[in-house]
Amino acid sequence: MSTLTEAPKPAGSLLLAFQVKGKHCLVIGGGNVALSRVEHLIRANAKITVITGGGNVCQEMKDYAANGKIHKLVEREFKSTDLTMYENVNKFSDVDQISDAASFDLIKSSVYNEIFAIVCCCIDNYALSEKIYYQCKYLRLPVNIADKPPLCDFYFGSMYNQENLQIMVSTNGKSPRLSRIVKDNIAKEFDGIDLNKAVENLGLIRSRLRNLIPIDDDDVLNIDTRMNWIKTLTDFFTLKQWSELELIPPSSAPPYDNRHKYIDNIIKYFPDYPPSDFEEFKSVVICD
Amino acid sequence: MSTLTEAPKPAGSLLLAFQVKGKHCLVIGGGNVALSRVEHLIRANAKITVITGGGNVCQEMKDYAANGKIHKLVEREFKSTDLTMYENVNKFSDVDQISDAASFDLIKSSVYNEIFAIVCCCIDNYALSEKIYYQCKYLRLPVNIADKPPLCDFYFGSMYNQENLQIMVSTNGKSPRLSRIVKDNIAKEFDGIDLNKAVENLGLIRSRLRNLIPIDDDDVLNIDTRMNWIKTLTDFFTLKQWSELELIPPSSAPPYDNRHKYIDNIIKYFPDYPPSDFEEFKSVVICD
Repeated sequence: MSTLTEAPKPAGSLLLAFQVKGKHCLVIGGGNVALSRVEHLIRANAKITVITGGGNVCQEMKDYAANGKIHKLVEREFKSTDLTMYENVNKFSDVDQISDAASFDLIKSSVYNEIFAIVCCCIDNYALSEKIYYQCKYLRLPVNIADKPPLCDFYFGSMYNQENLQIMVSTNGKSPRLSRIVKDNIAKEFDGIDLNKAVENLGLIRSRLRNLIPIDDDDVLNIDTRMNWIKTLTDFFTLKQWSELELIPPSSAPPYDNRHKYIDNIIKYFPDYPPSDFEEFKSVVICD
Repeated sequence: MSTLTEAPKPAGSLLLAFQVKGKHCLVIGGGNVALSRVEHLIRANAKITVITGGGNVCQEMKDYAANGKIHKLVEREFKSTDLTMYENVNKFSDVDQISDAASFDLIKSSVYNEIFAIVCCCIDNYALSEKIYYQCKYLRLPVNIADKPPLCDFYFGSMYNQENLQIMVSTNGKSPRLSRIVKDNIAKEFDGIDLNKAVENLGLIRSRLRNLIPIDDDDVLNIDTRMNWIKTLTDFFTLKQWSELELIPPSSAPPYDNRHKYIDNIIKYFPDYPPSDFEEFKSVVICD
């Protein structure tokens, strides 16, 4: 067996970026946990329906509804038929017949406009929660019953958001406190860093390198050299430092386009490296 | 409207920790992308079925199957009936009848033992991929069609794993390279840090503080003071530094239990603070 590929070690959950933009999502409950679910769903651009149940509805939830952030706020007890409240049943054909554009369109409209992409239940009634869980499973709706890990298809984690970047920290339900501390640590690490800029800078160097040091695609040895050079260069500096570099000269403008000047200052070292000291690197690279 | 609660800004996906442990998951394809899906699923302890399709099957996939990491490796083209290959149909009753333990058990066994929790399609045939997508939607199976973002209920991200801690970095499909760089950055930040130890240390200080500085639960002002003290103290040091402290004296043993000695050295400063210089902190705290 020792010659076989070593499998990854089990490490908890399958972390996924779920796409709920424009899709119906159901939250059952009107308290603080329900509110936090709603806020996650607002961030993900979901079409949110809230069935508040019998208890008090927190002010923020009412505000979100008044703000138009919640698609539908239903202030009453939950009914089983709520789980399919937007569905028009008996419309699907048999699975084997799903093979042409017309059937695709039918399913698409049903999926996006009718079915709840996820259900979050945040009520204090355990018997009702359990019933909702099994009804969701019957209907094949992914469901999270708050505070009842065995009745959850998915958990929430601590999240850090920055424009096109999202980071989730999860302890698989074991220590939300640890999640939060680690998330705050990551936030501290990345706050004030324009990550898109850092990646843009690295992308500029990479594409210019490909142009200046063209290599036959079959020349694996040289492809490796080029790849390792970029990789090593990337590791010279932190993301914060990469984000702070302005690698396009401010004076760059047609017809005298010198936009690659600074980048060429870096690439002229290839296959050696420019200085790894950030200040020295800047003084060598960013000079006209 | 300005008096209403300000809603969170839309920021992409809904990041979730999906629970697929012991659940059937389907991967269609036998190449490198399929392999990476399988590795994600192995980490999450899923029961993996792979339908390889007509192309070549990579060696690692065969090794995982030989290793018993893949529940079932089917080396042939995909058929529509594969999507329900473990299901016994026509067993469910109507949704309204799902209200007693017997019906719960019936659904539970069907859900866990029969239905694919997720489907990942990683083949080069677009027409077949599209058909699989819509068939999955008809069957209400969450599905990811590799490299076709509009045909994905979820995306994968870059992942960092440490014992009970998982971190996912996602750019919402926009820049897998940025995800990887940020993930590597986080890995560099946390590697060699025993995060559980850091949290254990902070937990010890917190619980001892509660014992030594008891406060009436209604005394909001003092509760705040205590909370802010812990928060400020937490921020004094990095997670790495907190993970490196041994706050239980090595000599601690009954009947002469001095296990709180070092922690009490910290708390004696309350509501002032111990030194924020790490070396000074250590020399003041960890001394017998």
